[in-house]
Amino acid sequence: MGLKFVAVISAAIALCVAFYLASWVKRCDAGNDRMKEISGHIREGAFAFLKSEYKFMVIVVAIVFVLLFLAVDKITAVLYLFGALFSVLAGFFGMSVATLGNVRTTNAARESGMPRALKVAFRSGAVMGLCVAGLGLLGLSVIFVVFDLATVVQCVTGFGFGASSMALFGRVGGGIYTKAADVGADLVGKVEAGIPEDDPRNPAVIADNVGDNVGDVAGMGSDLFESYVGSIVSAITLSAVAAKEAEVAGGFTQYTAALFPLVLAALGLIASVIAILMVRGGGKDSNPAKQLDMATYISGVIVIVGSVLLSKKMLGSYDYAWAIIAGLIVGILIGKITEIYTSADYKYVKKIAEESQTGGATTIISGLGVGMLSTLWPIICIGVGIFISYKFAGVYGIALSAVGMLSITGITVAVDAYGPVADNAGGIAEMSELPEEVRDITDKLDSVGNTTAAIGKGFAICSAALTALALFVSYAEVVKIDSIDLLHPIVVIGLFVGAMLPFIFSALTMNSVGKAANEMVKEVRRQFHEDAGILAGTSDPDYTRCVNISTTSALREMVIPGLMAIIVPVVVGVVLGPECLAGVLAGALVSGVMLAIMMANAGGAWDNAKKYVEEGNFGGKGSETHKAAVIGDTVGDPFKDTSGPSINILIKLMTIVSVVCAPLFGAGLLRF
Amino acid sequence: MGLKFVAVISAAIALCVAFYLASWVKRCDAGNDRMKEISGHIREGAFAFLKSEYKFMVIVVAIVFVLLFLAVDKITAVLYLFGALFSVLAGFFGMSVATLGNVRTTNAARESGMPRALKVAFRSGAVMGLCVAGLGLLGLSVIFVVFDLATVVQCVTGFGFGASSMALFGRVGGGIYTKAADVGADLVGKVEAGIPEDDPRNPAVIADNVGDNVGDVAGMGSDLFESYVGSIVSAITLSAVAAKEAEVAGGFTQYTAALFPLVLAALGLIASVIAILMVRGGGKDSNPAKQLDMATYISGVIVIVGSVLLSKKMLGSYDYAWAIIAGLIVGILIGKITEIYTSADYKYVKKIAEESQTGGATTIISGLGVGMLSTLWPIICIGVGIFISYKFAGVYGIALSAVGMLSITGITVAVDAYGPVADNAGGIAEMSELPEEVRDITDKLDSVGNTTAAIGKGFAICSAALTALALFVSYAEVVKIDSIDLLHPIVVIGLFVGAMLPFIFSALTMNSVGKAANEMVKEVRRQFHEDAGILAGTSDPDYTRCVNISTTSALREMVIPGLMAIIVPVVVGVVLGPECLAGVLAGALVSGVMLAIMMANAGGAWDNAKKYVEEGNFGGKGSETHKAAVIGDTVGDPFKDTSGPSINILIKLMTIVSVVCAPLFGAGLLRF
Repeated sequence: MGLKFVAVISAAIALCVAFYLASWVKRCDAGNDRMKEISGHIREGAFAFLKSEYKFMVIVVAIVFVLLFLAVDKITAVLYLFGALFSVLAGFFGMSVATLGNVRTTNAARESGMPRALKVAFRSGAVMGLCVAGLGLLGLSVIFVVFDLATVVQCVTGFGFGASSMALFGRVGGGIYTKAADVGADLVGKVEAGIPEDDPRNPAVIADNVGDNVGDVAGMGSDLFESYVGSIVSAITLSAVAAKEAEVAGGFTQYTAALFPLVLAALGLIASVIAILMVRGGGKDSNPAKQLDMATYISGVIVIVGSVLLSKKMLGSYDYAWAIIAGLIVGILIGKITEIYTSADYKYVKKIAEESQTGGATTIISGLGVGMLSTLWPIICIGVGIFISYKFAGVYGIALSAVGMLSITGITVAVDAYGPVADNAGGIAEMSELPEEVRDITDKLDSVGNTTAAIGKGFAICSAALTALALFVSYAEVVKIDSIDLLHPIVVIGLFVGAMLPFIFSALTMNSVGKAANEMVKEVRRQFHEDAGILAGTSDPDYTRCVNISTTSALREMVIPGLMAIIVPVVVGVVLGPECLAGVLAGALVSGVMLAIMMANAGGAWDNAKKYVEEGNFGGKGSETHKAAVIGDTVGDPFKDTSGPSINILIKLMTIVSVVCAPLFGAGLLRF
Repeated sequence: MGLKFVAVISAAIALCVAFYLASWVKRCDAGNDRMKEISGHIREGAFAFLKSEYKFMVIVVAIVFVLLFLAVDKITAVLYLFGALFSVLAGFFGMSVATLGNVRTTNAARESGMPRALKVAFRSGAVMGLCVAGLGLLGLSVIFVVFDLATVVQCVTGFGFGASSMALFGRVGGGIYTKAADVGADLVGKVEAGIPEDDPRNPAVIADNVGDNVGDVAGMGSDLFESYVGSIVSAITLSAVAAKEAEVAGGFTQYTAALFPLVLAALGLIASVIAILMVRGGGKDSNPAKQLDMATYISGVIVIVGSVLLSKKMLGSYDYAWAIIAGLIVGILIGKITEIYTSADYKYVKKIAEESQTGGATTIISGLGVGMLSTLWPIICIGVGIFISYKFAGVYGIALSAVGMLSITGITVAVDAYGPVADNAGGIAEMSELPEEVRDITDKLDSVGNTTAAIGKGFAICSAALTALALFVSYAEVVKIDSIDLLHPIVVIGLFVGAMLPFIFSALTMNSVGKAANEMVKEVRRQFHEDAGILAGTSDPDYTRCVNISTTSALREMVIPGLMAIIVPVVVGVVLGPECLAGVLAGALVSGVMLAIMMANAGGAWDNAKKYVEEGNFGGKGSETHKAAVIGDTVGDPFKDTSGPSINILIKLMTIVSVVCAPLFGAGLLRF
């Protein structure tokens, strides 16, 4: 069956398109010397981060590799290496182009206006999107071609684990990094030295701009790379179950069931490529938000139609298409729901702004209230999605719905990564003192980017939830437990412990932001103190050093939460047994999803409530209301950019560690 | 076997002692006219609340009674009435004496000094403690004597449901009430009219003092009444399982297994009586905190020794004692752990105060961080407790450990209720302009009360968790499902939905506080506006009206969260089936416990961080640090006094509704 090459070829096509887009972006003019200088600093800072990160990671990956090689399985260990490598490559290419695209977007806004600027910014982000999906699919499909089916099913989780390890560093480290730099730059630069925001004399300002790329491009990308790979891995792992369940109805072989998610992902990837190439900036008065939405819808429709045909042709029934469509629609829907809770166009954000009139405490209370309330509809959507998928296609269907949702990862990451590029473009315009009409264009692009970022966060959480659930089912399959009985107290104990972990994890990451910001503050103060020329503008600040400090402290701070995510499942599995571990995974999944939604949406809502006040509502900038709104925004920063998104990784990583390490678990040393 | 009368007699003894203590308190001198007048207003306000509350409740209870009578079971319905009635009686007596005790404590401080004041305050609280445990045990043991075993096992849940319904109103309504009055009094009185705190010209100030009684005495009491009854009900429901499991080893009859928890509770009640009577105020330099701790430890030791003997004598094995002891120790331990996170003697509160130096946002972030971190040890304790109980005595052991923990409810509620009495005593001293040395004494008593209140909250959450878990096991027994398989997606859907409910519930109750406070503000403004004599001090404000408004809005605001707790389980059970409902209960349990611990401890920590700053640290009162700390305290108010404690009720009420309504559930209309 030549179908197995379809995925390889699609992935190759997507990567070629990514390469084409990258060189297209590169060929665009980067503007005047000042613009080039500033963007050069950002780019330099981003690479400084990558360098330090990779140095650190090599050690971790090497240790895990050796452990896997000795204790679990040799091929799994090798695939682990490849999973980590591919995740690194996706992040590297994506961020590399994003840091080229920012200044070119500014220049396009300066020279040609909105449509061209949109096109440049979007195409820069699209490289990240295509790299994530393309490299993910390439890796998995090559594994499928090279090894025999039994080996694939047994060892492909290693690839997922590799992707997860990198995501941990990307998302958690990146999240700590970006907020530490943000706070550090503000505190010393704006407050102490009295220089304006985005002033290039402030060594931490570059780190701040780097942070946008590190957190919102690379971090987000590695998160979705993990989800993308994880969902497909889970579907492959469940292929035997699927084939067995379908036996009665005439059915299909396990081989087909394992191949199907790859073909489905290939379909989604091609759909993403088509949709990406269709975003051309439009006419003079085109609405950028509409174009991005349209791209998502187009790829969604292609996948829906294609999945109906594929499902019938490969698996002999339309039932599987229902699961795929359910996942896809739930993913898009949750993005839209997120917008309702976090955009100033709807009542929730306005209410937070209104409540800010009575001070910071009411801002916080109403923001937390909105965040908590915002769990309602996403959970109902996820519940309905699970219901439909299972009803039509069993546990395999749950994995397929995750694959369906993530099949359009190419376009969703592209839309998502567009945001920080536009954000950076605005910063560069400001720092280069370009005329106001340029700022107007980048501001408009940026505001669209804020919405897409919020939607992207909703999608990331939801896809993490579904991926973790699919992997959870795979876990049960791999450890060969027939039931995980909530009536057995060891499962309940696990459930309690699991539900606790996201809370501890969030507390740790929030504290880490504080600590890392503190170190950044000290370094900036030192530079100002030791070289008076920096503030006078006669000598360049040491951006790289600042970036290194932020990187080092971010990486150091993420060690404990990171180790927690890897060690807890192994210890629980070995000591208390696989049933207890199942409880832990389920508990962490459900409480983590709530906390992640709450934190992401409360953070987004506070951010936009502050902006809403700044637009002149309830007293505008400088009023007491504004001060209260700023408190909300500051609390929201680690909520939405560090702790909230990091929970995605926690729940996925814990589950995949459990799947990979399943052979190590006996019945549990303390079993009863 | 005459043992069944032991429980009835013990309960009668406890109630007699309560009656004796009440008349002892009543006989104490209430001080000068000014003191009598002020305490009269508080008392009047408290009864105004009770009156309105009971009016409202009669309707709800009547509706539920009719539904139970027609759809479920006649005896269950009647017992439901009695459960509600007994809860009302406990709240009525307890609050009645607490509102007599406050002024008498003030007067004892004025006339005789600390030891006597401690004795009066503690004995006032002790009436509540003995009423809660005495009436709970009396009701259950009379049911046991009157009906045959089969009827008891089948219908006793009705009594628990009655207790739960009342707890909902007591805890949620009381929680909204107390914070609405607090905020309302502060905003108009202190900020707008410029009159000092606790000024009797402010009509809402009395409501504020009433709120302490309503929330911290009656609300807390009804919460623990529910836990107390619920844990025993659960053990009775599991008696058949216990007898069956013990069969192999020679064993005991179901009758003995059902009687055992009642006898155990009787033991704990007598232990509480002894411990309560031993608190006599001590010498001149005695430490009130130590005396209260000692009382708890004494009753704990009595129960431990007694349970070992009882377990061997009645059930033929020491194994059951382990479960009881585990529960008891976990309960006391969690109280102590709570203290570490919420007292200014330890690093966490100091750190929040320190972080307040950089503004309100860092206060919030570090407080939330402390709250989240504080879930770690309580959950580990609960986990170990479950592990030991089950290991030694099966699922019945889990119920027994809850009964063991709650057996000393008499003393824990007494210590807990002592707090608001001391708090009120301080307020009365202030308003009556008594000399400073009186204030010094009441301040010291009050500060001990703050710690006991925080410990009490920890105990309430932990006991709610264990009770809900025990009832959860009973639920599975009643609906006759053999396993609740986490691998079945309908259970996972339930788990997601359940985990979401505490978040929605918390958001609703937090918003309700805001709305109710708003109405209070309007009423106080109206009174000031329409009668200038109030502020001049020539005419009395209308306290009752203010109290009524607060009551009405509190009760109205709790309807939606309350209905949610009752309706969701019934709808899920009928539509999606008992397995899905089990998932909902488990999800709500684990995520609710985390949220409750987080909210209660963050709130307590913020409160004490503010006080720590007010003591002169980091700038003291009036500094920027203090302003930031006040923001934390204000956010913490609904956290620790409304939303956090209300979650206790949510998880218990949902579970007991499920147990009672189990006969209504088929396989689920949408079953698959």
